[in-house]
Amino acid sequence: MSEQFFNNVNKIQFEGANSTNPFAFRYYDENQVVLGKTMKEHLRFAACYWHSFCWAGSDIFGAGTFDRPWLQPVGNQLELAEQKAKVAFEFFEKLGVPYFCFHDADIAPEGSSLKEFHSNVNHIADIFEKEMARTGTGLLWGTANLFSNARFCAGGSTNPDPQLFAYAAAQVKHVMDVTHRLGGENYVLWGGREGYDTLLNTDLKQEGEQYARFLNMVIEHKHKIGFKGKLLIEPKPQEPTKHQYDYDTATVAGFLHKHGIAGEIHVNIEANHATLAGHSFHHEIATACAEGIMGSVDANRGDMQNGWDTDQFPNDVAECSLVMYEILKAGGLDTGGFNFDTKLRRQSCERDDLFLGHIGGMDTMAKSLLNAAKMIEDAPLSDFVDARYAGWQEKLGKSIMAGEQSLESLSKLVLDTDINPKQVSGRQELLENIVNRYV
Amino acid sequence: MSEQFFNNVNKIQFEGANSTNPFAFRYYDENQVVLGKTMKEHLRFAACYWHSFCWAGSDIFGAGTFDRPWLQPVGNQLELAEQKAKVAFEFFEKLGVPYFCFHDADIAPEGSSLKEFHSNVNHIADIFEKEMARTGTGLLWGTANLFSNARFCAGGSTNPDPQLFAYAAAQVKHVMDVTHRLGGENYVLWGGREGYDTLLNTDLKQEGEQYARFLNMVIEHKHKIGFKGKLLIEPKPQEPTKHQYDYDTATVAGFLHKHGIAGEIHVNIEANHATLAGHSFHHEIATACAEGIMGSVDANRGDMQNGWDTDQFPNDVAECSLVMYEILKAGGLDTGGFNFDTKLRRQSCERDDLFLGHIGGMDTMAKSLLNAAKMIEDAPLSDFVDARYAGWQEKLGKSIMAGEQSLESLSKLVLDTDINPKQVSGRQELLENIVNRYV
Amino acid sequence: MSEQFFNNVNKIQFEGANSTNPFAFRYYDENQVVLGKTMKEHLRFAACYWHSFCWAGSDIFGAGTFDRPWLQPVGNQLELAEQKAKVAFEFFEKLGVPYFCFHDADIAPEGSSLKEFHSNVNHIADIFEKEMARTGTGLLWGTANLFSNARFCAGGSTNPDPQLFAYAAAQVKHVMDVTHRLGGENYVLWGGREGYDTLLNTDLKQEGEQYARFLNMVIEHKHKIGFKGKLLIEPKPQEPTKHQYDYDTATVAGFLHKHGIAGEIHVNIEANHATLAGHSFHHEIATACAEGIMGSVDANRGDMQNGWDTDQFPNDVAECSLVMYEILKAGGLDTGGFNFDTKLRRQSCERDDLFLGHIGGMDTMAKSLLNAAKMIEDAPLSDFVDARYAGWQEKLGKSIMAGEQSLESLSKLVLDTDINPKQVSGRQELLENIVNRYV
Amino acid sequence: MSEQFFNNVNKIQFEGANSTNPFAFRYYDENQVVLGKTMKEHLRFAACYWHSFCWAGSDIFGAGTFDRPWLQPVGNQLELAEQKAKVAFEFFEKLGVPYFCFHDADIAPEGSSLKEFHSNVNHIADIFEKEMARTGTGLLWGTANLFSNARFCAGGSTNPDPQLFAYAAAQVKHVMDVTHRLGGENYVLWGGREGYDTLLNTDLKQEGEQYARFLNMVIEHKHKIGFKGKLLIEPKPQEPTKHQYDYDTATVAGFLHKHGIAGEIHVNIEANHATLAGHSFHHEIATACAEGIMGSVDANRGDMQNGWDTDQFPNDVAECSLVMYEILKAGGLDTGGFNFDTKLRRQSCERDDLFLGHIGGMDTMAKSLLNAAKMIEDAPLSDFVDARYAGWQEKLGKSIMAGEQSLESLSKLVLDTDINPKQVSGRQELLENIVNRYV
Repeated sequence: MSEQFFNNVNKIQFEGANSTNPFAFRYYDENQVVLGKTMKEHLRFAACYWHSFCWAGSDIFGAGTFDRPWLQPVGNQLELAEQKAKVAFEFFEKLGVPYFCFHDADIAPEGSSLKEFHSNVNHIADIFEKEMARTGTGLLWGTANLFSNARFCAGGSTNPDPQLFAYAAAQVKHVMDVTHRLGGENYVLWGGREGYDTLLNTDLKQEGEQYARFLNMVIEHKHKIGFKGKLLIEPKPQEPTKHQYDYDTATVAGFLHKHGIAGEIHVNIEANHATLAGHSFHHEIATACAEGIMGSVDANRGDMQNGWDTDQFPNDVAECSLVMYEILKAGGLDTGGFNFDTKLRRQSCERDDLFLGHIGGMDTMAKSLLNAAKMIEDAPLSDFVDARYAGWQEKLGKSIMAGEQSLESLSKLVLDTDINPKQVSGRQELLENIVNRYV
Repeated sequence: MSEQFFNNVNKIQFEGANSTNPFAFRYYDENQVVLGKTMKEHLRFAACYWHSFCWAGSDIFGAGTFDRPWLQPVGNQLELAEQKAKVAFEFFEKLGVPYFCFHDADIAPEGSSLKEFHSNVNHIADIFEKEMARTGTGLLWGTANLFSNARFCAGGSTNPDPQLFAYAAAQVKHVMDVTHRLGGENYVLWGGREGYDTLLNTDLKQEGEQYARFLNMVIEHKHKIGFKGKLLIEPKPQEPTKHQYDYDTATVAGFLHKHGIAGEIHVNIEANHATLAGHSFHHEIATACAEGIMGSVDANRGDMQNGWDTDQFPNDVAECSLVMYEILKAGGLDTGGFNFDTKLRRQSCERDDLFLGHIGGMDTMAKSLLNAAKMIEDAPLSDFVDARYAGWQEKLGKSIMAGEQSLESLSKLVLDTDINPKQVSGRQELLENIVNRYV
Repeated sequence: MSEQFFNNVNKIQFEGANSTNPFAFRYYDENQVVLGKTMKEHLRFAACYWHSFCWAGSDIFGAGTFDRPWLQPVGNQLELAEQKAKVAFEFFEKLGVPYFCFHDADIAPEGSSLKEFHSNVNHIADIFEKEMARTGTGLLWGTANLFSNARFCAGGSTNPDPQLFAYAAAQVKHVMDVTHRLGGENYVLWGGREGYDTLLNTDLKQEGEQYARFLNMVIEHKHKIGFKGKLLIEPKPQEPTKHQYDYDTATVAGFLHKHGIAGEIHVNIEANHATLAGHSFHHEIATACAEGIMGSVDANRGDMQNGWDTDQFPNDVAECSLVMYEILKAGGLDTGGFNFDTKLRRQSCERDDLFLGHIGGMDTMAKSLLNAAKMIEDAPLSDFVDARYAGWQEKLGKSIMAGEQSLESLSKLVLDTDINPKQVSGRQELLENIVNRYV
Repeated sequence: MSEQFFNNVNKIQFEGANSTNPFAFRYYDENQVVLGKTMKEHLRFAACYWHSFCWAGSDIFGAGTFDRPWLQPVGNQLELAEQKAKVAFEFFEKLGVPYFCFHDADIAPEGSSLKEFHSNVNHIADIFEKEMARTGTGLLWGTANLFSNARFCAGGSTNPDPQLFAYAAAQVKHVMDVTHRLGGENYVLWGGREGYDTLLNTDLKQEGEQYARFLNMVIEHKHKIGFKGKLLIEPKPQEPTKHQYDYDTATVAGFLHKHGIAGEIHVNIEANHATLAGHSFHHEIATACAEGIMGSVDANRGDMQNGWDTDQFPNDVAECSLVMYEILKAGGLDTGGFNFDTKLRRQSCERDDLFLGHIGGMDTMAKSLLNAAKMIEDAPLSDFVDARYAGWQEKLGKSIMAGEQSLESLSKLVLDTDINPKQVSGRQELLENIVNRYV
């Protein structure tokens, strides 16, 4: 490997909307102030370790197509992991992305025992500390991989075997500790194997209780170690498992309420997981904001004609503007950010394709931020919505919401005063036209 | 109209599995005892008023194809409603279905005011009382139609207009009272317009709070009038609305927990709504049982290639056997039943097609009951599941579930004792083969 | 009805991109010249009769919400049809849409016999002639409705009954004649009931042969009467029928080849039908262009979370720009146009909502045209594609395509010269970023 | 590796429907005569090499879970391939499956050049010859893997690079020759990478022409070498590629007609590919039979809630009975068979799970054959269908199909004789009930 892996790419610069330089930002100017904060502060971009540095372009029907020389089935795996870390930080620095995210299994070899795995993770975390200090890159979130190793094929916390549950707990504890040490701003739980492949061998109730118990331990550990970041659950409806328990935002929110931990956990919403669950990206974000559990975003997109997680780079400014609008309305992302949980297409086998994908994604989100900020300032949507629900600020509406009415009292009111409401235009086409002025 | 509408059909009889008489039951023998109860008691079949007597076979692209002479745009609507009631009870009696279900708008014309509507509903309810007494038919559940009239186009309880909310309350109150008077065993809420067509004009949080308030009023009214039946929410993810709040069973369960009304409301699960939500029918039933909110079933099926509610008659014995198995495991249906929320195909324009559809559906569920009962008796699935989760009855498992462990204590245990769990076969293919012995 | 139905709307004017007048065009300037033709000539917009004037906002779960006073179950249906025609032309004129489209059953009552239906259609066609002359509105296409009347529930040309086939033929003949008389530029066939509800009662082979026979008669009649417009089949995969034979563009193209009528028939592609078939709108247009059968477009959009035909107004400029790009590359629409086969949302019950929907759709397509024209001029995509396939213009490529090679000769070549091709980047992310410069 | 890999499993025996031995057939008795042929002759079962012996249970989110000691990243790959062949034939023999299927890349290592690959394939083919002679196992079909190697990431015959086309041709030629040498009964083409990932870099027309050219070469080579088996295209709509050209049976049939090779190529239909394309398995089989291009079947099933190829073992007797009914009606499978293109679930990590999956699949198809044969004998469906279309055997119907009628003549007939057809019941519910008597 050459001194620098991406030796034909320099630091990506902002050049403005008219630039045709494919290796420049057209909208993402990290220092531009929008609604009182810089773009960097609003967007809090992260690159992900797994798709970008741990995957060589294989799919279920074919081998890798990318050159990732540190991915080799044999050889000193820890040295290869060091090489990978070096390339990753070269990339973060040149791209100018302020954060990154990782699973333990992304960064270090598992070795032959959990003890060895912990030791390898710690070794790479030492390197991370130095590289983070050198480059100024922060850790948006860490997470434990409880799905790739064969031992997790029936789940981690929802496994039929309590010993496996204990093993998962040990792994999570360690990554929480490492995340805390590295100043991580959140800790994520994605339950890719927490679900079922067939109901025939599954005890749904038991698994739900196990999962709640596990989350309670994670919450306790967070407080014990003084981790100030957010705990985030990442909903996904299926894939790899036939059905996953964290199906979508509404399901996760309900589970938290059921188990009395609603204030302790937020969600990490992925665009492609939204669409796999039968929702729009916009819907999942709006739901999380309405529930008060909006945490962070895995910014990618799916393919509406393909029924699996394609994890493409976001490029739909119209949709992302509405997403950004919801987030701005809800006060911004706090400890969250936009993490590019994104894969190059398997044909995109040039080294610099990795930059092109991220540049496009960052510009998409930056332009969407600009559009959304304008919609916040002009307020055409919120004015309409306020007017539409105005009745709830008036006497009858307030009295209903205050619990002062019953079916009986309202029935009497309607019959006595001959209330007979007619349909009112929802003005959907008008509102869509208005949005098109901004996007 | 002739004296009898279905004059070429006599009372449907049980003739046994070898019968080739299309107007006989092959499996549904209402008096056959299965696991200590008769089939009639287990299955608690209901026919629905709406698809069977209020719909002439129209779809969004075409006019009705069935002869339903009581459906006429002009003429004395109350007399036509009387005629409809007469035909309906002729059908219930000849089919031998022990229950029926209705919406207020199915049974009586709305007239020109809510007062008139109430009066019309009461008038038909008087007829129902007599017909129910005469035929022995019971009321499985009643419900208010808060979706067909233009006034409900933006929802009932989740409407932006509090006056409309009040109107919906008045309508629900009346149908609850009528359901109670008729000895109904449940009261259902289906929120076909409780959702959004576009997020652009919608306040999700406000609508959620309105809905919770409405449900609380319904619960209060139930207790006030001494209604002993169950309140049931019927989940559906979309159609007619782009997105409906009662998306699926997990979403409804979470909403109930959030608003502290989990013990008060159960679910009415429809097979076709399950598949529209991206779930199997089996999944929705198993989820409701695991959540302890299983109420009643709308027994139909969708078409897996069509993305709308086709409401076909159930005919898949294999799937329905697993559904029945979950219900038997959970102790049976209590106040619920299997309601045929089913439509004839638009081409099925002969009067007697209505019998053929129901006979097929009833036989499908009866055969499924027999299969499931055998699976309960032989216990091949539950034995496997018990063995698979056996560790949770042992020391480590119990200690975890008792809250005696932390991430730290489990981590120490794993590292100290070198716990290293390996994958264990989930035996899915074996279990599927075993199920095929029963279905 | 008032003298004018849309009395609060005046003729819609072009006001430019900065206009915030909801009743003005921001991009559609019919006289603006783009790549040598006016926008009017490029886009050839049409309004549809059915959704706009024959439908009052009902759906399968609820009654109409719009005021369309000419839609009444009783009364003089021909007078009501005259009133409808008057309103329609008021709308066409105020909107400034150069074309309209209709089914026979949209414009005139069926009466009690086919003879009466023909007579009614002719009567309204007389009115059309005058209104078309007065307003300058043209007929983009006419079509016979072979799906709404109960008699067509098992299809028209693919019906099991030859008498019904004959009836369908009679109806099509008449609408072809009327379309010809009105100067229609195309004649469309949409087979909403040409398919099956269940394979159990269907003879696929027989129905395919019937359909081919019918199309041959249509072709013969076209030539006989000297109709110079195009015959267009409109693909749709399902709805109302479980499976429709004109599933998608590729299926239609194959059917035409099979029956030797490939040069005689083109396709009318609808965006929402594309997505129901599992394709992108872009895919269907690109396929039709590649097959040389691109005819006309039903410009609407579906909802990716809803599995039925929502027929919304197009508002996605990014996607429509790619659609327009394909059409421009293929030489434009010839006799086709962009027909708004679009429905207002059921809540959009104000009269002027009908204008708002169309204005948004027309602006979406106009902006897309501008974007696509720029992509044609700059040629970033076509340059890339040309370079990617350049090998086919060289010796080996030409020799293969000329039929000069065999598996054997190529095998020898590869083995002898040690050909060992490596992967080449498809540059998808780069190309997507480039497109985002234009849309 | 032990002397025998599956040392705890003996030859699987037929034990009859009441057997509860999981390692016995309940329905598949290879010698039982059904409609004049043995089950073995009807069903012509094959096991597939790839999922069963070349895959260790990995998915895109996790590593392999099965013990397949011959799958190792390092070591003598040809020796490992020999070991694999030995295990495969042990399996075929013990299962009693009369055929197998393979890709070249399944059976032998690719080595460092095409020459070496050919040599390795030949070496294993020598072993196959001996094992086939020893065990009596036949080759249902062979195929070339043009999708796993990175070089094929943009397709084989539809690649932008003619050199790659040539390479693909060389590979196909060799596998055709080897298939012929081994007495293979068919040769299959599955175009997993013949499609596009984005239209932005794709020339649809060019790729279609390349593909047609390639197929012509394959046809020529078949005849040249005297291969008597069938050439089969296997439709699949997407995955791994965003869109694949062989989308479904109708698309393939149309493509063959377009290019004048309709008589030369048949289809290999896979159940899971059918459902991914938005069709039922039944639909695809019925379509192929109606088109006269039915070839062979990849007998598996998908998961209707998951949008990717799950390749599960078939276990739905009801659906497979209808599939078998279509095949029997069309005269049976000729050179085709039922190939188990099926994967164990990732949790099914016991060696004997491979037997359990296949036993369940074989019994499912055997029971379906028995059911279908009974439906053929009793003819309840075909009698109904014949009656439904009887009009086409009468005067008007015959005259239409003979081309003796025009739109004009039929219009005259309808108007003159006042033809006015009414809807006729399609009796779908009745027919579904009848089918349930057989399945």
